[in-house]
Amino acid sequence: MLNFEYKNPTKIIFGKGQIEKVASEIPTDAKVLMLYGGGSIKKNGIYNQVINALSKHEVLEFGGIEANPKYHTLLKALEVIKSENITFLLAVGGGSVIDGTKFLSSAALYEGANPWDILKKSIRTEVGMPFGTVLTLPATGSEMNSGAVISNEETKEKLGMGGPGLFPQFSVLDPQVIASIPKRQIVNGITDAFTHVLEQYITYPAGAHLQDRIAEGILQTLVETAPKIIKDTTDYEAASNFMWCCTMALNGLIQKGVPTDWATHGIGHELTAAYEIDHARTLAIIGPNLYRFKLEQKKEKLAQYGERVWGITSGNTIEKAEQAIEKTVEFFHDMEISTQLSDYTKDYKGFAQLIKSRFEERGWGALGERKDITPSDVEKIIEMSY
Amino acid sequence: MLNFEYKNPTKIIFGKGQIEKVASEIPTDAKVLMLYGGGSIKKNGIYNQVINALSKHEVLEFGGIEANPKYHTLLKALEVIKSENITFLLAVGGGSVIDGTKFLSSAALYEGANPWDILKKSIRTEVGMPFGTVLTLPATGSEMNSGAVISNEETKEKLGMGGPGLFPQFSVLDPQVIASIPKRQIVNGITDAFTHVLEQYITYPAGAHLQDRIAEGILQTLVETAPKIIKDTTDYEAASNFMWCCTMALNGLIQKGVPTDWATHGIGHELTAAYEIDHARTLAIIGPNLYRFKLEQKKEKLAQYGERVWGITSGNTIEKAEQAIEKTVEFFHDMEISTQLSDYTKDYKGFAQLIKSRFEERGWGALGERKDITPSDVEKIIEMSY
Repeated sequence: MLNFEYKNPTKIIFGKGQIEKVASEIPTDAKVLMLYGGGSIKKNGIYNQVINALSKHEVLEFGGIEANPKYHTLLKALEVIKSENITFLLAVGGGSVIDGTKFLSSAALYEGANPWDILKKSIRTEVGMPFGTVLTLPATGSEMNSGAVISNEETKEKLGMGGPGLFPQFSVLDPQVIASIPKRQIVNGITDAFTHVLEQYITYPAGAHLQDRIAEGILQTLVETAPKIIKDTTDYEAASNFMWCCTMALNGLIQKGVPTDWATHGIGHELTAAYEIDHARTLAIIGPNLYRFKLEQKKEKLAQYGERVWGITSGNTIEKAEQAIEKTVEFFHDMEISTQLSDYTKDYKGFAQLIKSRFEERGWGALGERKDITPSDVEKIIEMSY
Repeated sequence: MLNFEYKNPTKIIFGKGQIEKVASEIPTDAKVLMLYGGGSIKKNGIYNQVINALSKHEVLEFGGIEANPKYHTLLKALEVIKSENITFLLAVGGGSVIDGTKFLSSAALYEGANPWDILKKSIRTEVGMPFGTVLTLPATGSEMNSGAVISNEETKEKLGMGGPGLFPQFSVLDPQVIASIPKRQIVNGITDAFTHVLEQYITYPAGAHLQDRIAEGILQTLVETAPKIIKDTTDYEAASNFMWCCTMALNGLIQKGVPTDWATHGIGHELTAAYEIDHARTLAIIGPNLYRFKLEQKKEKLAQYGERVWGITSGNTIEKAEQAIEKTVEFFHDMEISTQLSDYTKDYKGFAQLIKSRFEERGWGALGERKDITPSDVEKIIEMSY
């Protein structure tokens, strides 16, 4: 087991009818900016639940934060925060709204001239403006971690940021919100959370047996829960397990003491930036091919995953690893998630070469748990994904 | 899944050579009281490591906190805290030293006349004096939770206390400390952590599938790790997994969203109070008999535990449940932990009746996840344990 530090101070408020508790979590003298996305919360009743709960607070609102939250949209919200002397942020949405809110939490207290520097120069956020979240779409785990990813349309960049100042003070997780989520977003959420676990688990054995077991437990629960929640989004038992799995998949716990990969995300972000393919679907396109490409290095963990999550018993280590990859692809296909780039765009020729060049220009060097996936390897993995 | 709230702000600093980090976790202007037990830390070098790390801090010390920390010993430490204007507590020890420190954290700021009231009147500690821990004996999980158990020799009571003010600010977990722990305490630690998981898991199905998987993951890891760490306490991989399992077994995570039992602890505490039997061993005496007594109500979870942790495949639900109990007893016996009261004392006649009367007098009513274990049931369970 590798050395690690772990601290996660976010308060989780989980269950039926919990949204009204936002009122007691936000100081009554706070001036609140409520942030949300395209307005689905006005159709499904969550907007009203939050507004009613905060009837004794001073609340302004800012809607229209997009999927893959855009820097220039967030700058408009930042103007509101500064001009209105906002003191507390409340994200009501999925990972995009929460990530956007994290950027604002940091930017609101940032003293530099250009807030994009927080991302471009990887400035760690030690203290941010306090914020809470009401999660409406389980997927990214952003509700219980301190990271965010922001897109810049002008520069075609999608960059990450983080720091101990970016944990939500609280997050309300009411699984009943899942009832009104479209199937497309449900399967995206499952795929996203599933890949989050794989990124922290399919590396090489590090003697962290408990972390392995917990990672496998999240994967097993997602595999068992997926058909149930896809069939019936009002199945509360399935909804609650789906929601808690998504949070646990990326709240820091399973990555402690082990190497982590994250190359699938690094490459996948480029597919979203270029073609606006849903984030989760880019992971389903890249992940299995990355594992095929890195089969030799990842075979022990892939075989263990195959045995424990998929019940594979036949074959040697390599054969078990190969079967595990095929099981993963089948799992995505069963959710009607295509794992080939050509199913999403016909304009893919030369894309692998382009990303190779872009990675070289950025001087990123290498990805993966061994930092040995070169831009040339990335080109090959993308070509395998056509 | 039941509704729940979860917040655990303790910072864990885990790994080789981490003890020196206490220096950067304690404010330099703090006046520190370092608390420890019988002095084993002076033999194994941990005392020197801590003292050297805190060479720039003002540090006083208080040694001699016993196993099952005693109220009257702690009162002496409380006098030091008050007379010396201590502002930060540092527990260097196992669960007893940490629990004692939690009592002191609460009592130092308590304004009532009698600090025993914190336990006797179940006064929740919202704010305590800040404290950290250096864990020297994995077992109780006290290093990452907000509970403590204190014994009063005069009244023969062993009572619990807790509250959000009693999370350690930090805990240093260096698995290398395990190398010098006597085998008796190693097997106690495994038994304690194992039973902590069972108390939160062997109840009735509540649809919390991820929590079940994580509980099973801790149990599986303990079963796999036990023979390795018992054989060789310098096996770092085994030591690190043993240590992290003990913490994860009782840091609040696996109890969220599920019913919990704790009757084994409730009854076991009486065996320690009466006979000074090691806490963990009282759990091994009572737990299996509690499960036999409650077989019908607990059969589904016992059978699931048998299937997933012990690989039991034959028999119906009741038969699998019975085999799971026998496997648990074998596990304890393999560690040379006796599961019969008569192996610890010859003076047990009438004890079951005595505890029944004591529970009746206290008006405790009933124990267990359904609150249906009556004093008469406790009598029967203890008689089964003779």
